[in-house]
Amino acid sequence: MSERVGFIGLGIMGRGMARNLLRAGFDLCVWNRTAAKMEEFAKAGARTAADPADLAAQSDIIITCVSDTPDVEEVLLGERGVIHGAQPGALVIDTSTISPQATKVMAARLAERGIHMLDAPISGGSEGAEQGTLSIMVGGDAEQVARAMPVFRAIGKTITHVGGHGAGQMVKLVNQILVVVTMLGISEALVFAQAGGLDLEKTLQAVSGGAAGSWMLTHRAPQVIRRDWRPGFTIDLQQKDLRLVLEAADQLGVPALGTGLVFNLYRVLQRAGLGHEGNHALVKALERLAGITVGER
Amino acid sequence: MSERVGFIGLGIMGRGMARNLLRAGFDLCVWNRTAAKMEEFAKAGARTAADPADLAAQSDIIITCVSDTPDVEEVLLGERGVIHGAQPGALVIDTSTISPQATKVMAARLAERGIHMLDAPISGGSEGAEQGTLSIMVGGDAEQVARAMPVFRAIGKTITHVGGHGAGQMVKLVNQILVVVTMLGISEALVFAQAGGLDLEKTLQAVSGGAAGSWMLTHRAPQVIRRDWRPGFTIDLQQKDLRLVLEAADQLGVPALGTGLVFNLYRVLQRAGLGHEGNHALVKALERLAGITVGER
Repeated sequence: MSERVGFIGLGIMGRGMARNLLRAGFDLCVWNRTAAKMEEFAKAGARTAADPADLAAQSDIIITCVSDTPDVEEVLLGERGVIHGAQPGALVIDTSTISPQATKVMAARLAERGIHMLDAPISGGSEGAEQGTLSIMVGGDAEQVARAMPVFRAIGKTITHVGGHGAGQMVKLVNQILVVVTMLGISEALVFAQAGGLDLEKTLQAVSGGAAGSWMLTHRAPQVIRRDWRPGFTIDLQQKDLRLVLEAADQLGVPALGTGLVFNLYRVLQRAGLGHEGNHALVKALERLAGITVGER
Repeated sequence: MSERVGFIGLGIMGRGMARNLLRAGFDLCVWNRTAAKMEEFAKAGARTAADPADLAAQSDIIITCVSDTPDVEEVLLGERGVIHGAQPGALVIDTSTISPQATKVMAARLAERGIHMLDAPISGGSEGAEQGTLSIMVGGDAEQVARAMPVFRAIGKTITHVGGHGAGQMVKLVNQILVVVTMLGISEALVFAQAGGLDLEKTLQAVSGGAAGSWMLTHRAPQVIRRDWRPGFTIDLQQKDLRLVLEAADQLGVPALGTGLVFNLYRVLQRAGLGHEGNHALVKALERLAGITVGER
């Protein structure tokens, strides 16, 4: 018999994941701070819990999908947190992107009560969550990763066990460094191309297939040219993740020249009230510096 | 009857291109500053010329593949340059990567004598030149681009007419901005991952397929992990191109924060005698700053 699953956090990402778990036939219990978001799932056959401890008492595997480190600490270790309801042997899977260091500390606290933990941050956006095609970077013990596989397969496509506790979070931060510095290059290239009077569509056509190519160039540069700022991932969320990168880099004692630069450019945009736009709006910070608008004829 | 082709510059790139033109059956004349490099082509049935003017006198289409702006100026406009031998109606195709501004000036000088010009910088490395799979970014008049197509098809695969004189060079510089800033992100991400004790191969496996993915990540990051610094493109050549980017950005009055940073990091490596290594050795500049070696266990 498959294990009972509890799901905490029915936001943009969590909602899609929880739907896919129901669809895959899991016995599901849900909890969300704003109770109204649970109704849809109750109607679809899920149980609902009064709080995280109550949810944990009814679940073998507990998945968390919340915003930031303090949110995970609250739902796991707070007054009515998972730790107060979970049975020894239960498994917590945290799919939030949070501090690798805090993840290790929480895994140790849970282990004292015989509760297992995996960090399993996801990437692929809300579409990936809806379609069950997320990439999942997993840190923790191999045995628990194997146990979690049926759950992972219901919500994701590329599942990589990358190391021990916290390693999933570290790899997610590596992912974010790559995404934003690549976007810096794209932004700088587009401002340069615009200033030089190039046809931007032909320019992209000429360079996208070669050594200059990237996922962000293929998917986000055309959006920039159309000045379509709808978010695949918002600047506000990106900043939350870059804060984690810079904090971890500081703890590790390594410089982060590119990421630090992008963080400060995004800060300019947040200050201008653009935090809700997609992370490809980074180009707007360079446009301000250059006094140029990409895509303008 | 197909047009007679003259080829100037039998270096690493030019050699492969000239071979492909011979293979495609073009009536070929070659010239190279170091005469010994012409022997192979003489044996294979090409004519050889005494100087660029002499070559131009025997050719309908003249291709140049030399290093930098002054080299192109010399072979086209110098004392025994192409301009002194070419007939009105001849077409010059410059495949070197040089200044977009200087390209416009040269095209105008040649036009005064009724000589056409296309700027057609290439990308794809020496393998691409050997295999005839180069990407070619073409600037100039549409009529001449159509005329040049049989030649382009013999040496390249992706041929994009991007605009008027100098536009090919501008797009090539856009390409270089994308390449080096993407490589900055990869370098920073690998140093961060190494400092965090991650398994680098698993890390790449987890992130390469998603939004963090790029041609450079797929092709160069594994080389970095193996510490294989053989060049697809050397730091010295990369710097020559970045100098063109920064010069053009200065003329256009736009900032180039990322490219400027990378230019200075490469300068550190050139000073350390590493200019002959591949452009992915950029990571070594960050390693110096961090006191960390990527790939070390």
